[in-house]
Amino acid sequence: MRDIAVFTGSAHPELATEICQHLGVPLLPTRISRFANDCLEVQLQANCRERDVFLIQPLVPPVQEHLVELLLMLDAARGASAGRITVVMPHYAYARSDKKDAPRISIGGRLVADLLTTAGAGRILAITLHSPQVHGFFSIPVDHLHALRELATHFQGYDLADTVVVSPDLGNAKQAAAFARMLKVPVAAGAKQRFSDDKVVISTVIGDVVDRDVIVLDDEIAKGSTVFELLDRLREQKVRSVRVACTHGLFASAALRRLSAEPDVAEIVCTNTVPIPTRDHTDKLTVLSVAPALAEAMRRIHNGESVSALFG
Amino acid sequence: MRDIAVFTGSAHPELATEICQHLGVPLLPTRISRFANDCLEVQLQANCRERDVFLIQPLVPPVQEHLVELLLMLDAARGASAGRITVVMPHYAYARSDKKDAPRISIGGRLVADLLTTAGAGRILAITLHSPQVHGFFSIPVDHLHALRELATHFQGYDLADTVVVSPDLGNAKQAAAFARMLKVPVAAGAKQRFSDDKVVISTVIGDVVDRDVIVLDDEIAKGSTVFELLDRLREQKVRSVRVACTHGLFASAALRRLSAEPDVAEIVCTNTVPIPTRDHTDKLTVLSVAPALAEAMRRIHNGESVSALFG
Amino acid sequence: MRDIAVFTGSAHPELATEICQHLGVPLLPTRISRFANDCLEVQLQANCRERDVFLIQPLVPPVQEHLVELLLMLDAARGASAGRITVVMPHYAYARSDKKDAPRISIGGRLVADLLTTAGAGRILAITLHSPQVHGFFSIPVDHLHALRELATHFQGYDLADTVVVSPDLGNAKQAAAFARMLKVPVAAGAKQRFSDDKVVISTVIGDVVDRDVIVLDDEIAKGSTVFELLDRLREQKVRSVRVACTHGLFASAALRRLSAEPDVAEIVCTNTVPIPTRDHTDKLTVLSVAPALAEAMRRIHNGESVSALFG
Amino acid sequence: MRDIAVFTGSAHPELATEICQHLGVPLLPTRISRFANDCLEVQLQANCRERDVFLIQPLVPPVQEHLVELLLMLDAARGASAGRITVVMPHYAYARSDKKDAPRISIGGRLVADLLTTAGAGRILAITLHSPQVHGFFSIPVDHLHALRELATHFQGYDLADTVVVSPDLGNAKQAAAFARMLKVPVAAGAKQRFSDDKVVISTVIGDVVDRDVIVLDDEIAKGSTVFELLDRLREQKVRSVRVACTHGLFASAALRRLSAEPDVAEIVCTNTVPIPTRDHTDKLTVLSVAPALAEAMRRIHNGESVSALFG
Amino acid sequence: MRDIAVFTGSAHPELATEICQHLGVPLLPTRISRFANDCLEVQLQANCRERDVFLIQPLVPPVQEHLVELLLMLDAARGASAGRITVVMPHYAYARSDKKDAPRISIGGRLVADLLTTAGAGRILAITLHSPQVHGFFSIPVDHLHALRELATHFQGYDLADTVVVSPDLGNAKQAAAFARMLKVPVAAGAKQRFSDDKVVISTVIGDVVDRDVIVLDDEIAKGSTVFELLDRLREQKVRSVRVACTHGLFASAALRRLSAEPDVAEIVCTNTVPIPTRDHTDKLTVLSVAPALAEAMRRIHNGESVSALFG
Amino acid sequence: MRDIAVFTGSAHPELATEICQHLGVPLLPTRISRFANDCLEVQLQANCRERDVFLIQPLVPPVQEHLVELLLMLDAARGASAGRITVVMPHYAYARSDKKDAPRISIGGRLVADLLTTAGAGRILAITLHSPQVHGFFSIPVDHLHALRELATHFQGYDLADTVVVSPDLGNAKQAAAFARMLKVPVAAGAKQRFSDDKVVISTVIGDVVDRDVIVLDDEIAKGSTVFELLDRLREQKVRSVRVACTHGLFASAALRRLSAEPDVAEIVCTNTVPIPTRDHTDKLTVLSVAPALAEAMRRIHNGESVSALFG
Repeated sequence: MRDIAVFTGSAHPELATEICQHLGVPLLPTRISRFANDCLEVQLQANCRERDVFLIQPLVPPVQEHLVELLLMLDAARGASAGRITVVMPHYAYARSDKKDAPRISIGGRLVADLLTTAGAGRILAITLHSPQVHGFFSIPVDHLHALRELATHFQGYDLADTVVVSPDLGNAKQAAAFARMLKVPVAAGAKQRFSDDKVVISTVIGDVVDRDVIVLDDEIAKGSTVFELLDRLREQKVRSVRVACTHGLFASAALRRLSAEPDVAEIVCTNTVPIPTRDHTDKLTVLSVAPALAEAMRRIHNGESVSALFG
Repeated sequence: MRDIAVFTGSAHPELATEICQHLGVPLLPTRISRFANDCLEVQLQANCRERDVFLIQPLVPPVQEHLVELLLMLDAARGASAGRITVVMPHYAYARSDKKDAPRISIGGRLVADLLTTAGAGRILAITLHSPQVHGFFSIPVDHLHALRELATHFQGYDLADTVVVSPDLGNAKQAAAFARMLKVPVAAGAKQRFSDDKVVISTVIGDVVDRDVIVLDDEIAKGSTVFELLDRLREQKVRSVRVACTHGLFASAALRRLSAEPDVAEIVCTNTVPIPTRDHTDKLTVLSVAPALAEAMRRIHNGESVSALFG
Repeated sequence: MRDIAVFTGSAHPELATEICQHLGVPLLPTRISRFANDCLEVQLQANCRERDVFLIQPLVPPVQEHLVELLLMLDAARGASAGRITVVMPHYAYARSDKKDAPRISIGGRLVADLLTTAGAGRILAITLHSPQVHGFFSIPVDHLHALRELATHFQGYDLADTVVVSPDLGNAKQAAAFARMLKVPVAAGAKQRFSDDKVVISTVIGDVVDRDVIVLDDEIAKGSTVFELLDRLREQKVRSVRVACTHGLFASAALRRLSAEPDVAEIVCTNTVPIPTRDHTDKLTVLSVAPALAEAMRRIHNGESVSALFG
Repeated sequence: MRDIAVFTGSAHPELATEICQHLGVPLLPTRISRFANDCLEVQLQANCRERDVFLIQPLVPPVQEHLVELLLMLDAARGASAGRITVVMPHYAYARSDKKDAPRISIGGRLVADLLTTAGAGRILAITLHSPQVHGFFSIPVDHLHALRELATHFQGYDLADTVVVSPDLGNAKQAAAFARMLKVPVAAGAKQRFSDDKVVISTVIGDVVDRDVIVLDDEIAKGSTVFELLDRLREQKVRSVRVACTHGLFASAALRRLSAEPDVAEIVCTNTVPIPTRDHTDKLTVLSVAPALAEAMRRIHNGESVSALFG
Repeated sequence: MRDIAVFTGSAHPELATEICQHLGVPLLPTRISRFANDCLEVQLQANCRERDVFLIQPLVPPVQEHLVELLLMLDAARGASAGRITVVMPHYAYARSDKKDAPRISIGGRLVADLLTTAGAGRILAITLHSPQVHGFFSIPVDHLHALRELATHFQGYDLADTVVVSPDLGNAKQAAAFARMLKVPVAAGAKQRFSDDKVVISTVIGDVVDRDVIVLDDEIAKGSTVFELLDRLREQKVRSVRVACTHGLFASAALRRLSAEPDVAEIVCTNTVPIPTRDHTDKLTVLSVAPALAEAMRRIHNGESVSALFG
Repeated sequence: MRDIAVFTGSAHPELATEICQHLGVPLLPTRISRFANDCLEVQLQANCRERDVFLIQPLVPPVQEHLVELLLMLDAARGASAGRITVVMPHYAYARSDKKDAPRISIGGRLVADLLTTAGAGRILAITLHSPQVHGFFSIPVDHLHALRELATHFQGYDLADTVVVSPDLGNAKQAAAFARMLKVPVAAGAKQRFSDDKVVISTVIGDVVDRDVIVLDDEIAKGSTVFELLDRLREQKVRSVRVACTHGLFASAALRRLSAEPDVAEIVCTNTVPIPTRDHTDKLTVLSVAPALAEAMRRIHNGESVSALFG
């Protein structure tokens, strides 16, 4: 395999720049044009022939624009005779569409996996997929990193004597349990029912949280409806303090501002798998960088070294 | 689409016979030969040409034998110019291999889905897949039935005043919560860690079970290690009574006998998605039949009627 | 093949409604949800099983939204066991990306054709693809209608004694020549060079246009840069009058208002393959409906009658 | 990628030999047998395992023989574990079948592209495809060279003061316009209608040619019907002289002899993408070699250097 | 499935006509054009939409022409939305290339099977494939008829008291043994070694043939080298008489004339799977028609009746 | 291509160990787990990323277990980003299912070839496939070794003056003839009819065996029914001695013990493509090792050297 060649779409150029700094390679230029009829065209502006090409693009809003852009980047790289094409997708938004819980609905998580393959993807590097089964939606190899270690390292400096990790949802409780084991604290979980994308009800919190310091852990916070609902339940149970942690800080609908405005939320911790608008930054927010982990994974992929050995 | 043609492999002919009785069609003969070198050969012994072919085969032990047998049945049906081929797979054992939780392991749930498609499957009819995401492993349409309603109907005749549904595992707690809502009772869950296929530890039960009548709900019981571990925890919490319910009653390693021998287990309820050996039947065991539901689904599939309308 | 089932995405519901009126069938409901993380989910809200499903969606701005929506509709229809799925795509915007005229660029016209097939499309019904070769980008059958006849019928009522049809571009001149033959008038063409999507230069008009009534014919008008550039050349040659005709009236960047504001443009004629914003309508604009033609083609596709016999 | 390995079919061994001389590698032997039942069998007579294999074969008459021969060469190379297989196809005859202009006809340009992929082609190196969209018919990378530069270099030594480039057909006029820009002369075009493969009518020449030195430019000359028809129109317009240039000099039906017999045709220029029978050579004919360009492209492909950088 | 639609290529229109007479349906017109550059184009000149299309074409010399013609017919039928496409291929010449008995050779039998699938074939109807394993080269259903019954019926009228069936080759001896069982006579076989397509040596005849009436049975006679070599061996063993029977009477290189000129060859029997040139007919030749068998198989395929029931 | 990495399944670890000793590389560890529900899971316990992976697994009883195990190994290697995956399959049991000799039966030889490709196989290394056509069942490259040379070398030390090689079956007689040519002795063959897997009748032996030393040659001996039947015929013809040779010594149903118990069977020779149970070893048995040949082939595959050059 000849040289590495790294390109980024328009979704998160800051992360791509940071990754390239860690890798010590240049971020190669990409031209993305929009025609009068609103179609996109991509030109990769450096030689791809027989190169080990990495395309960095998390699927963040506007998701459809960024997805089609990524598909066109793949098409361009393939047509330019790339030796191998790896999609570095720190956030795979469509992973949430992972099951058929109503008749005649699309399963976007599987469909988009197939579209990426059709467009020429040969390998995926992802972080914290919404459910571990999404790995199996891909017919190409997936290297699946987790940011739990980064998040745990952050909290290990704290006094965790009376701490409990709370998952807002039983469905995600296994991750919370693993996180709690890293911190050597107990775990609890909300019994959540989703009535619509916006409307969730947490009927009860299963497990003991009274008078505890709570770390709420979720994989992703979008509008934050679930977290706000959980906060209500936690307050009913007289918790002592609340910190909120997640991997993907999407913070739609001013969720970050609304969340930091809650007096009993002491801290919000997320990673930079997705861009955080500068204007929404608050003192309560801590953003951990996944760039070192991604750069090291890319270096190992390029050199044929074990990725699992690093993160296993 | 011309006539329906139903065949069965050797995994569960009793269920196939019962389905055909409900459908009012004959179960057509299949010849399965084993050669001296241990290879299998399948002959479907009735005309398949342009027929709407259904092949009934749950993946039960010996799983590998039944899987290859099913793949050969598909090959034979395709080569015989079947108009459409639906696999009726009441138990998809490989659904448990649905994620990559260690480096360089196989994801059997996705692989077997691809093998079925390669061999000629055009559609799957399944019951209670281990996780709902497994649906997305298939590139062909899947009709996914649940037996929760059958199980709930069974328990609705009981006095449920002090009853709680307990999921042995947080990972499966959403199904238990849905089941509890059908019965209008609360839910609890064990915090399970699996150290190996045999060795599980449930550190605690999250939720209130003291002095309650417990219904343990799982999708599948194989060796029963998880249930036995849960029983220990429940006894520590002085529960009043225990009933055990599951969809797939595999009952490996004499699990059925060992479970019914526990004095505080009042009842064991499962369905006939997999065959229950007659010698293991006990008075405590109730087996609910999924044949009427499968037959009705097959009738609707054949007639082009909505399956979700029935079971939604 | 059982009943016809027609659904529309959100790109052009008016056209879908009009088509269904001509077909005498209901337009079935589709639910398109947007999640907090900006992902889309589609639910087809009527039984698709074994139906002859038609999905109506021109690729108009926002193109990426409408494209992903269409792909999800296809996924939902396939997963719902549709008997056959035909995409009715009156405008295929990506057809303009039909060649590789710079190194390492995407060929969107071919890529999107492959994506549609991956998502489950079984057949395409299109109108006036940007180049006839785009037909060959699809690996599935394409029924390709032209609106030249509708446009010609409109102009046949006029006095065409001194009329000449002018193609803005040599590359599209064959269509203009065919159109001119229908009207029994001569043809001319601009020698166009495109420097960017916005910047075109027409160095000269090849053919005799002095003192003539000109009908400018193009397949699509987006920003109208080409037409405005052509108007300058035509004025230099002292043409008597100008009428502008096209199939796809995209009219981006207020092109319709700017064009109708030109005093020497007597009329603008297009079809409703794409929606025309009501606020941009002017007295100079005539919109011809392709709904009757599309409805008749769909009826013939459903009944297995020859489509080419109708439009050949 | 290990060593380069170049083989040729029987279509144009002279070109293959010349290419190998430029590359400084041997032309490896191929055995092509014809059985009594007229089937062909190919044996590549040198090790292909993990080699970078190039198969040189333009699709020239007998086209079907040469096509099947090429498909069998691909099959042999793939079965022999070639590391990568590039088809060097200086003339892709089926590119002319690029659209569906009558009902129920084959689109050979797309079909043959798919057949090549099925047989094992991994990449195509082509020259002057009949239309640029044909590039998009291939699902594998295509390096598409043009011979316009070679042709322009030839004419740049002439006095071009009163010269005009004439495309016989509006459909090909964009290439002629690009060629004219290289020579810094104006362009004109015939308005051609094809009634059958043999019967074309050019009703008029659009653009000014009176008393000019004309260079007729076409991509390919087969029987020459179009050129002869154009000559009639040019004579009516009293042109001063005529030179004829094309990339692919197929010269079927003694077209070369008939064309050189025209007194007012001063010169005929083509390249050696296809073999020119020695007996048809005339003093008026100039054959430019594409071997240096193909050899350089193959060298760059083998070394992973940019091909577009060379020819862009 | 709607109406049947039968087309033929140019390989054997007489057989197609005869089949259609037995079926009572018209043979629909096909236009096959050859362009000046030697490319073929096919137009199916009757509506194919949703029809049950049958394309009749044995692969006889010129094999490459007829193969590409068939591939283009498939492409045209698929593009014209045929409901189902069955290739009726009474002689599959490439079946002889069924193994890799030298390094780096093509396996034409498998390759052509894949090409037919790529071009759109959905099913094959074949007669007497050179080896039964060739069936497995196809990924689509194959209905494989044998003409042994027709040939046996012909000979059952004879006095077979001292008759022996002789296979020229051990490799084909199983068919000869089956044929001998039908006639209730013994079997013998030549030990053949093939040095090239032309040069075969039969070292010995295994089995007793002295003073017997011999029926030589082979699947195909092309140049007849094998049969002539066998005749020499048989004469050495003083056989009483020789009759020659085969399914596919290709008779290349005047084999029919040379064979009938042998005084001790009493009769030559073949079928009309391939056309026999009228000028080569001799009194010694008997041609049996496979048209009734093919027509009946096509009728059953169309109606969804068992084909094996007829011929098994 | 980076380093070689060799793994074995559980079918024949002794052979894998021996191969690795010849290659001078370690046999890397594989973990194969069986879950309580009888599903298998494979973990390759050494880095595969970009390695040249070889998976050794003959398909020996229990065939279905070993086949699924191999498919899971392929899935694991692919998911672990192996650079290339070669299946070393010294015995391909399903090759016997190579034709459709009854209606509606499976063709396992082709199906399993497709399954291996679906699971990720990139190349096959096989020994003595049951019929040479099975090679064509694979769509990936196959290196096909023969053990005839090893077997011939063994017998060349004997006095072969009155020896004849006898094939039990005309269908396999070509191999026997080639073997006989290596030994420079004549060949004979049984006329075998198979009534079922167990029940074969050899009506006669074609060729002269009276008073000869016979070497019976078959590709595989399973239950040995054919050989025992042949022994009866040979005794009737008063042969002098019998030696039995085969490549694949499966020896099911105590065939080895029963065969060695026959007094007139002087020797049984086979290779170690399949494991021979130690308890069945007898003094009459000679097992030749194919490990040196497989190791040399693997070395050449890894280094890109010609394999056919070695074994051709």
